[in-house]
Amino acid sequence: MIHINENFLKLKAGYLFPEIGRRVRRFKELNPQAEVISMGIGDVTQPLVPAVVEAMHRAVDEMANQKTFKGYDDGGVGYEFLRQAIVENDFETRGVDLSIDEVFVSDGAKPDTGNMQEIFGADNVVAVADPVYPVYVDTNVMAGRTGQANEIGQYEGVVYMPALAEHGFVPQPPQQPVDMVYLCFPNNPTGAVATKDALAQWVAYARENKAVILYDAAYEAFISDPDIPHSIYEVQGAEEVAIEFRSFSKTAGFTGVRCAYSVVPKALKAYRQDGTAVDVNPIWKRRHCTKFNGVSYVTQAGAAAVYSAAGQKQIRATIDVYMTNAASIRETLGKLGYEIYGGVNAPYIWLKTPDGMSSWDFFDKLLQQANVVGTPGVGFGPAGEGYFRLTAFARPEQTKEALERFARL
Amino acid sequence: MIHINENFLKLKAGYLFPEIGRRVRRFKELNPQAEVISMGIGDVTQPLVPAVVEAMHRAVDEMANQKTFKGYDDGGVGYEFLRQAIVENDFETRGVDLSIDEVFVSDGAKPDTGNMQEIFGADNVVAVADPVYPVYVDTNVMAGRTGQANEIGQYEGVVYMPALAEHGFVPQPPQQPVDMVYLCFPNNPTGAVATKDALAQWVAYARENKAVILYDAAYEAFISDPDIPHSIYEVQGAEEVAIEFRSFSKTAGFTGVRCAYSVVPKALKAYRQDGTAVDVNPIWKRRHCTKFNGVSYVTQAGAAAVYSAAGQKQIRATIDVYMTNAASIRETLGKLGYEIYGGVNAPYIWLKTPDGMSSWDFFDKLLQQANVVGTPGVGFGPAGEGYFRLTAFARPEQTKEALERFARL
Repeated sequence: MIHINENFLKLKAGYLFPEIGRRVRRFKELNPQAEVISMGIGDVTQPLVPAVVEAMHRAVDEMANQKTFKGYDDGGVGYEFLRQAIVENDFETRGVDLSIDEVFVSDGAKPDTGNMQEIFGADNVVAVADPVYPVYVDTNVMAGRTGQANEIGQYEGVVYMPALAEHGFVPQPPQQPVDMVYLCFPNNPTGAVATKDALAQWVAYARENKAVILYDAAYEAFISDPDIPHSIYEVQGAEEVAIEFRSFSKTAGFTGVRCAYSVVPKALKAYRQDGTAVDVNPIWKRRHCTKFNGVSYVTQAGAAAVYSAAGQKQIRATIDVYMTNAASIRETLGKLGYEIYGGVNAPYIWLKTPDGMSSWDFFDKLLQQANVVGTPGVGFGPAGEGYFRLTAFARPEQTKEALERFARL
Repeated sequence: MIHINENFLKLKAGYLFPEIGRRVRRFKELNPQAEVISMGIGDVTQPLVPAVVEAMHRAVDEMANQKTFKGYDDGGVGYEFLRQAIVENDFETRGVDLSIDEVFVSDGAKPDTGNMQEIFGADNVVAVADPVYPVYVDTNVMAGRTGQANEIGQYEGVVYMPALAEHGFVPQPPQQPVDMVYLCFPNNPTGAVATKDALAQWVAYARENKAVILYDAAYEAFISDPDIPHSIYEVQGAEEVAIEFRSFSKTAGFTGVRCAYSVVPKALKAYRQDGTAVDVNPIWKRRHCTKFNGVSYVTQAGAAAVYSAAGQKQIRATIDVYMTNAASIRETLGKLGYEIYGGVNAPYIWLKTPDGMSSWDFFDKLLQQANVVGTPGVGFGPAGEGYFRLTAFARPEQTKEALERFARL
């Protein structure tokens, strides 16, 4: 008799964004005339930049010609031209030495952060920030690393590290030893960033406890402060304890194009039950090549064009559009008396709901009265209750209009 | 202390195709002048057809324009335009009624067949054909559904169903009850097809044992015999016990473009330990939307164009190129006295190695003496020892040249 994986039945109903989608659809059905502005799901709105568009057209033409046609990306780890560009542009420029076989090109940071846990044992203890991007937790629930959820949506066996305003929303290393730590900076949802000192503290913790840090740097392109590290590998010794995730989704408007990568350093070890060390890089490679078959050549050609001189200039201009939105949101909502965080080195603004409203009540109020969609902080964890996430990804005129509606609330 | 998932350490060294790649690279290094012809890895060589190319160019242009730009594919299950085309063209035409929310668009049949097992319990007993596409087994090893491999590469706990010449390489349902059955028709590697009666026998077995059939139909487009089913759902009642995998990789030359889909019927049930039934479709949907984020819009636009009148005509012409290759291979090798199977409703030719040579010895001989790469049958399982797989995917002139070299062997 075919048994279901009962770990899936532990998952709390309604992954956050589908639930938001359902509420918005219902509102639109009842109010077909309303012009709803989305500042909820972190999806980009600016088109692909010309350098990327040209590269993708060229790649499509190559695929149309037998002489230049490309089949499988050998091994599925990504074309060398792309991995080389990644190593040189994203890491060498920050003083980080990587070899291209430490880079695995994929179709998204969500798949990567969701899949990476699979190569580690089911008995590892997982620590996540609270609030947290739900994928880190849900994929560990699916893998059986947790018990049931309690009434506030936290799973037995997971160590939740409150990310509180008093520490700038950067979680502190836990007192007890844990094995897998998920960190995300610039942070989704709070927009917080970690200083080099804060990351060094985490690397020291991981080295001391032989833990692995799963470092999600999907938003590093939004860092403007020159002192903030873009990669955890800017901290010495991190290559022995950290895996890093990057994405073209927000950096270059690739949410509908699908390209990302993971860095799994050769120096990283995990351990058998008997304590002997095992290299992690070849095990992830085996997983990647067995359950994945590479990213579209057209997509990889587009991603590589992001690193051209023109591409860099163009994606910077797009990021500036979003960060100008972020600055307007901060300014307007600050003037309106909201308590606001983030939005300086990150495309997310984290605001305290007024008058102690619950996150979902504020969501409904904002949707009903301003026709603006945001994300309830509690959707990211109990410590997010009473907070609300706005993204800077709407179009500038939409952002302006949304802020006018906030003013009229 | 971070523990590795020790199930990964059970995997036998060298996934088949990387091992072939290593041997070929070494041969080329030692023989830089040799013109090696690949009939090994099942990768296509004909370019994308014009209808697909045009659709992809159009989609790139849409992505370049703010008004038509597409971000996330909502929920990641695939655009409705594509799922609708799939349901109408791949299933209604064969008398199979599906709703579009039973179709999940993905980036490949390899990921899909590798990932699907995850939603089922670790205690299920897995049955696979021998020989078999290695991904079915390796992903179940990773998931802990097996013990260690024995000296012939078979894993403890897996039920291997020999696919023998006397049954046309179609495995017979096992005597004992099993829970998860992987079937692939047209078959990789043997090129065998299953009649409707053979599939009906399997569906009856699955219904009787409450097993699930994981049906890989990635090669259905190569069926020429009108009596051979293209979908397992052509057998009544299969929708209660079967998941089907399809791919654009071989159908439309998408190995470097990446598009496939899974069908998870709403009628399909799995069971809790206490025997209560659970719907599988929403659980796969949850898995898919949590660990995957949709296929590139450009890719999906290309895939939809496969179903246009022009697209259908053009991909048929490409498939004809490959099947003409297959016919030549069958004819020439038959004349040369080889015992050959497949290649009629499938792009794979399965031949018995001459003089009882081992599969790898024949591989090395063919590489050294004819500079032709094929795939050793034993790489697909012990029952494949003494067999060898050739693909029909080389270019026609390469296939012709390879056959001339065979004649000179």
